[in-house]
Formats: sequence, C-alpha cells, structure tokens
Amino acid sequence: MPDAVQRWAVLLEYDGTGFVGWQTQNNGISVQSVLEEAASRLSGGHRVPSVTAGRTDAGVHATGQVAHLDFPAHVTLNARSVRDGLSFHLKSYPVVVLAAAAVAPDWSARFSATGRAYRYRILNRSSRPALERNKVWHVKFPLDDRAMHEAGQLLLGRHDFTSFRASACQARSPLRTLDRLDVVRDGDMISVIAEARSFLHHQVRNMVGTLHQVGAGRWPIERVREALEARDRSAAGPTAPADGLFLTHVVYPDGLFSER
Amino acid sequence: MPDAVQRWAVLLEYDGTGFVGWQTQNNGISVQSVLEEAASRLSGGHRVPSVTAGRTDAGVHATGQVAHLDFPAHVTLNARSVRDGLSFHLKSYPVVVLAAAAVAPDWSARFSATGRAYRYRILNRSSRPALERNKVWHVKFPLDDRAMHEAGQLLLGRHDFTSFRASACQARSPLRTLDRLDVVRDGDMISVIAEARSFLHHQVRNMVGTLHQVGAGRWPIERVREALEARDRSAAGPTAPADGLFLTHVVYPDGLFSER
Repeated sequence: MPDAVQRWAVLLEYDGTGFVGWQTQNNGISVQSVLEEAASRLSGGHRVPSVTAGRTDAGVHATGQVAHLDFPAHVTLNARSVRDGLSFHLKSYPVVVLAAAAVAPDWSARFSATGRAYRYRILNRSSRPALERNKVWHVKFPLDDRAMHEAGQLLLGRHDFTSFRASACQARSPLRTLDRLDVVRDGDMISVIAEARSFLHHQVRNMVGTLHQVGAGRWPIERVREALEARDRSAAGPTAPADGLFLTHVVYPDGLFSER
Repeated sequence: MPDAVQRWAVLLEYDGTGFVGWQTQNNGISVQSVLEEAASRLSGGHRVPSVTAGRTDAGVHATGQVAHLDFPAHVTLNARSVRDGLSFHLKSYPVVVLAAAAVAPDWSARFSATGRAYRYRILNRSSRPALERNKVWHVKFPLDDRAMHEAGQLLLGRHDFTSFRASACQARSPLRTLDRLDVVRDGDMISVIAEARSFLHHQVRNMVGTLHQVGAGRWPIERVREALEARDRSAAGPTAPADGLFLTHVVYPDGLFSER
C-alpha cells in the first residue's frame, strides 16, 4: 500500500537557459530534477514526484508554469512553507516558487488545466541584444507585424495542426483549438501571444516560425492557410528558436493561487 | 599639432552587471574601456578616446546611453560601419551599439546633452527574481506605490539636492532641476521614472531609496520635503542598489539618431 500523500500545486518562474528543459533526461540538468530535489530536501529526504502543466523544451522560460508535487502526508507544510522552503532549496538555480496551494489527490497540474498561454518575444532590430540575451529571438531585418497578426488569425479555431507539430510529438490527436494568436509590437519588440486549452509539441514555435515567413515578406498571408490545410510539417515554416518562448499562464477552473 | 579627428556619437545598450561602471578604473573592466578597445580595433590600432553623457556606476544598465568617440580623420567610416564595426568588436561583452552619427568637433555627448532619463525597477513580491536577476531591486514587503509617487512630486523643480548627493560627487553645484519623478506599477514591477537636464552622483538611487521609505510606510510623505530642505545627506533615505537602474535616454537639441 502506498504511503499517504499531500498534493501541492506550485506556481513557478524560471529562466530556461542552461536547462535541458522541464523533463528529467540523461544529458543535463532539468527544471523538474531541481524542483524534485528541493522538494526532497524540504520533506527530509523523501522522494517527491512531480507532474507539470507544460513540459517546456530546453531554453524555454516560464513566468507562470504550474506543477504538482506529492509530499508524504506526515510532513507538516503550509502554503508559505512550501513556497519559501522550495525557493530556499532552489536558490542555486534560476527557478523560484511564486505561490503554492494544497490540492486534492485527484487534482492534476496537467489534466486539470483548461488553458495555457505563451508569449514569444522577437527583438526586431539590427543590433544584437545586450540586455535580453537568451530571452528573445533576434531578427535583424524589419518584420511586418501587422501582416503577421493577420496571418495568425487564419489559424484560430479547431484544426488539425499536423503542419505545426514536432515529429516527436506524443499527443494522440493533432486536433487542437487555438483561441488566440495576437502579434503586437512595442518599439523593437514584437510579441506573439498564443492561447489554447493545450498545444502540440513545438506548436507555438512552429506557428511563430511560420508567421516570421509572412513578416519577412517571403510568404503571402494566404499561404499560412494553405500550410495549415496541407497537414504536412514541411508545408509550414521552420521552428523558431527556444530563447524567445515564455510559458506565461496556466488556467484552472478554480482560481488556484489566490494569495501570492 | 594634433591629428585631425572625426567625432562620432554612438547610442549604446549594455548590461552593467560585471562592469566596474562606465569609467575606466584599475579594479576591473569598464564599459568605456571595452568601447575604446573596440574603437581602436575598428580604426586599425589608433587610440580612440571617448566621452559619455552619463558615467553610470558599477552594475547600472543602459538602454540609451550616448558617448562620442574621436576617430582619426583618415579612417573611412560611415554610420553603419561605426555601428556594426563597434558591435562586432564588442561581441564578447554585453554591450552593443544601436546607432551612430557623425557630429561636429565641438559637439559633446556630455555637454551638448539637454536631458537625461532613468528608469529604476523594483520587483515588489515575496519571491526572488528568477528571470530578472541583477536587473531589479527585489523588495519583499508590499510597497505603496501611490504614496511613493505623491512623495516624488515634492522633489520636482529646481532645488539644492545636497541631501540626495553622494559624498564623492564632483559637480560644482548641488542645484538641479528635476522635471519628472513618476512612480508607476505594473503588477509586481514598480518603475520610478526620473528626468532632468542632469543629475548629481547617486541622485536617482538616493531618491529611490528615500521613496522606498515612504512606500514601506516608515516615513510620512511630508518627510521627503523635510529631507530635501535639510540639505544633509543623512536626512534622506539610503542609496538604492545599482541593479535596478537603467539609463534609458539622453536628449540633444538636434535629433541625433534618426536612423537605427
């Protein structure tokens, strides 16, 4: 019989530079491994497994990632001690816990989530970034952000997103409903804001790489619709670099983290 | 007789973390030294002295610093080759040239400037920054940004700013005219925006450290006026850390960098 556990949801911010991504692998340090190690220390050496809302790739950042952790029930914790205790044990890494909430054993950071939001940042100027290194995709030639926005609207709604799906994607179905794909410019910075219940592997970066073709004037806007309808990865644009991508928000039916 | 020179103004962005500040010193690498070294390489080994609009301290950043460089007149350069050539030779450092403009020999990045603008960023939340490390002042307890803004308005106008002046300040007069001191909040981030023709050494950081006393509820708003009138450094608040400070803009009567 397994030991009784108390499940805690945590809201995370991290700088993905230098991590192999969320998921624990053999070839480097993952966000998951440092989080679970911190949780293990906080619980006095027990193994504390985690599940996340979004398995971000190497180099991808988060301002609002959510994960859950199963602590042994006998460890006395509260929202503040989970938040501050985990952050303390994470202090050698660019990972911090912004909030924590006790959740039911059948609540899942992954399966209870009803929405994910990403922001992709493109620094659109001739000079490389001195301050935002590893936090933007640097595109030197001027991009037409209005054309990119218009093209983005062609991807909204429920579609087979095979053309925007990584070959390694493990999702059963390529059907997804894209709720928002806005392209907004603030000076040199272009942000692509994407919202959906869930995304396929590399979907946001593949959509951004495709909008980039439009913004660069290489593709007419209509070609994005053709790329979608082709249901063929080679019909869409290349994958945009990981550096510019931020997981900003995960939505749950109940407001999880009322106090921060 | 000195060799003929061509003076170039350059617009700079840099991450001040790891630099001893703008000015060349004996104890580490300065922004000035790496810029002059890059200019020397671009000119084929000549010494290229520089003058800046704002001698930022160690750890202070810039998104819109301006300096001028005196290149030997026989070196063939244009705005693009100065910008891209300097940026190329600066590529090992978090310093980049955003724009360049040829200027007259009597034009000075320092003395021709008619305005400077700084932004000071306070991350106001319980958790340390994972993404903005070294780019914010992290203040854990909630600050009253409205009270800080109100207090800031008491410092506007022409005053003797001795209370906000570093003991090492070399300016002849402590009189300055503060044109803007706005405190604005965007979620967890509080920005203090300061504009003046020029500032005393540490003036912005000392004003922020003083507004922080108000925001923390330790000082009533009126005490900021008393601190100003005391003309005594010990009457104002402590110096805010360098990490949160950005030199964002230098104003010249003629629009210098039309093309970027």
